Amino acid sequence: MKNTFKVAVVQHDCNQEYRHNLDNSITGIREACTQGAEIILLPELNCLPYFCVREEVRNFDLAETVPGPTTESLGKFAKEKSIIIITTLFEKRAKGLYHNTAVVMDKDGSLAGTYRKMHIPDDPGFYEKFYFTPGDQGFVPINTSIGKLGVMVCWDQWFPEAARLMALAGAEMLFYPSAIGWDPNDDEEEKVRQRHAWMTIQKSHAIANNLPVISSNRTGYEVDPSDNSKGTAFWGSSFIAGQQGEVLAEAPIDKSAVIMAEIDTGRTDTVRRTWPYFRDRRIDAYQDISKHHIE
Amino acid sequence: MKNTFKVAVVQHDCNQEYRHNLDNSITGIREACTQGAEIILLPELNCLPYFCVREEVRNFDLAETVPGPTTESLGKFAKEKSIIIITTLFEKRAKGLYHNTAVVMDKDGSLAGTYRKMHIPDDPGFYEKFYFTPGDQGFVPINTSIGKLGVMVCWDQWFPEAARLMALAGAEMLFYPSAIGWDPNDDEEEKVRQRHAWMTIQKSHAIANNLPVISSNRTGYEVDPSDNSKGTAFWGSSFIAGQQGEVLAEAPIDKSAVIMAEIDTGRTDTVRRTWPYFRDRRIDAYQDISKHHIE
Repeated sequence: MKNTFKVAVVQHDCNQEYRHNLDNSITGIREACTQGAEIILLPELNCLPYFCVREEVRNFDLAETVPGPTTESLGKFAKEKSIIIITTLFEKRAKGLYHNTAVVMDKDGSLAGTYRKMHIPDDPGFYEKFYFTPGDQGFVPINTSIGKLGVMVCWDQWFPEAARLMALAGAEMLFYPSAIGWDPNDDEEEKVRQRHAWMTIQKSHAIANNLPVISSNRTGYEVDPSDNSKGTAFWGSSFIAGQQGEVLAEAPIDKSAVIMAEIDTGRTDTVRRTWPYFRDRRIDAYQDISKHHIE
Repeated sequence: MKNTFKVAVVQHDCNQEYRHNLDNSITGIREACTQGAEIILLPELNCLPYFCVREEVRNFDLAETVPGPTTESLGKFAKEKSIIIITTLFEKRAKGLYHNTAVVMDKDGSLAGTYRKMHIPDDPGFYEKFYFTPGDQGFVPINTSIGKLGVMVCWDQWFPEAARLMALAGAEMLFYPSAIGWDPNDDEEEKVRQRHAWMTIQKSHAIANNLPVISSNRTGYEVDPSDNSKGTAFWGSSFIAGQQGEVLAEAPIDKSAVIMAEIDTGRTDTVRRTWPYFRDRRIDAYQDISKHHIE
């Protein structure tokens, strides 16, 4: 069984046009394939503008089914190139029931599985609770031809519980497609703290679980069409980290990029022998994790 | 109610002599007091050599009761200077029952509370499972005159569950006294990865819980008296991080040092309003955290 995989992240900007964004993704995928990528992670909601910048009923028209147009386009491409593609889309599951859903297309073009974003943010400029019902599948890795992939989505990345559950369920790598950026009103020091915190928390999931972490983000500035806010400056910085949180590849803040690293999933076992957290977890003492607050 | 506190970490080396090590701690405490410290964190087992480098029955003679000699010495000092001191000692709780125990001495010299290390490591050169029974108090913050302190010990720092439980129970700061270092046989790249991982995982607890994190470590090289190993080179690097994981103060790798930062515990509420993880935790989906493995 093969243990080493060339993993790529495609980082790009997005505008209001689905076709433009899909083309951006495909351009990046082609470049990654040229470099030998076998698994390619796209940014969160890679074919759409970040429409959650405001609450607008007609934005539900942007949703699609799974399978649907995006999985069909990318599935064909996955089959043609014999690669795994991880995309995220605005899923219409039923009338009035929508999710922010990651989809994994396997090397044969089949739909390997979905993950519906479990933790849904909501803050000025990121009104996701209006659009997305929180996932009801739990934190379950997706079985693919190359192993179990622990795919989550953006806000999930701030919750160590999510990474841990994916690891306990046998995930061999963790993936976080993201759409995260700065409020242009924030000062420079706050911007630095936020971007560093974003990288640190994800690297910590690599460390705590001895698993590679692959994180993508959008780049570029997206306006708020309502003029209610100054829009969002997505901070790029997509990265790939190894089992000790060491950064293997990192994209710039403000440019589209394809980054790549060779991941050795066999190293997880080696690192866990020296840093045996899984041996020592106090499962007798964690039950209150399932509370909001301990009175 | 006051929200800002001058917090200090005393980093020092240790040798085989209890008195020498206690003096080292007190020298650092005096220096921290001169700079206005109100809360002072010492390294793990600050009055002892790192005796867990081998399994040796006579080392149980190093244990003491709580209260006992160390809490008496430091308690007097805490009262005299009106400061809070956090020490860690080898606790003899009963015949044949020993713990690695953090003790908090309050400003009036009283013993505010104890925390018995919950996660016990065991790997070559760190044979802690031979000496320490895992704590049975759970992850409970210690009430002091200045608020609830989430004190844990070293190996606990690698487990996000522990930090989360302290935060859920109302801890206002997290403390990690440590005794962690390099195996001299490891190559330079591995040493860098390990030290960075140690800082990253602890900063991630600050980020995930929006709490300040104060971490101490020993510095200096300690021999293995049995000559079974090359001993341990403790990597210092004690640090204080704010609620977004930003480093406020950091000690060198290879020197004794007193570092200090002003902590504003009120900022936790402010940061949690912008980064509301506690609002969005999926407590309906975390129950499997209490398993070793999800089949």
